[in-house]
Amino acid sequence: MNLDFEKSDGLVTAVIQDHATGRVLMVGFMNQEAFRQTVETGFATFWSRSRRQLWLKGETSGHRLLVKEISTDCDRDALLVKVDAQGPGVCHEGYQSCFFRRLEDGEWKVSEPRAFDPQAVYGGKP
Amino acid sequence: MNLDFEKSDGLVTAVIQDHATGRVLMVGFMNQEAFRQTVETGFATFWSRSRRQLWLKGETSGHRLLVKEISTDCDRDALLVKVDAQGPGVCHEGYQSCFFRRLEDGEWKVSEPRAFDPQAVYGGKP
Repeated sequence: MNLDFEKSDGLVTAVIQDHATGRVLMVGFMNQEAFRQTVETGFATFWSRSRRQLWLKGETSGHRLLVKEISTDCDRDALLVKVDAQGPGVCHEGYQSCFFRRLEDGEWKVSEPRAFDPQAVYGGKP
Repeated sequence: MNLDFEKSDGLVTAVIQDHATGRVLMVGFMNQEAFRQTVETGFATFWSRSRRQLWLKGETSGHRLLVKEISTDCDRDALLVKVDAQGPGVCHEGYQSCFFRRLEDGEWKVSEPRAFDPQAVYGGKP
């Protein structure tokens, strides 16, 4: 059984979930090569839609995502990747999870403090 | 602060997570109107890419998703929707979660029993 890369221009959606806490950390996209590298290396690798290139998560920050388990959904166009997140957070804005803004009374409010200084870790790199 | 519906043809990705257990149940897509209806009604509503119409999850099965919390990510092109899932499961194939197949030794294996009979619930409807 193969993944369905056709429905979204060669990509499947990849939901990244912390294996230990169950927190959803980020959503990325994988093409066939990113999925292959993720499985072979054991570290989550995405296709960056903005940079149009393969993206080993953590290549700049060192905050890699060690894969513990991969599931796919009924339509085979989405992945659920459970990981051990290495480092204090996955978000390039310095948060533990990219989902750090919550809808409250119709407004998006930051719901947690930063886990690290993004400027120190990324130094302006993407 | 508005969601970014432009990056993916008017849609944002919506990850649906069980509020109580933390299990990721499904991934869907919302356009602006689906998001508005989700917030206003308190029940998750998607844009069905295959049927090209708004889709109140549970409209056929009764298995609605009662929204408890909505977060967005740093790029504002994905949502994390925590829900109380009404009924035994969200998947049209009869499983609690759409992510019922796990990668094991290079093959996708069904990793849990069905939670309900999809034929009895959906009767051939989508």
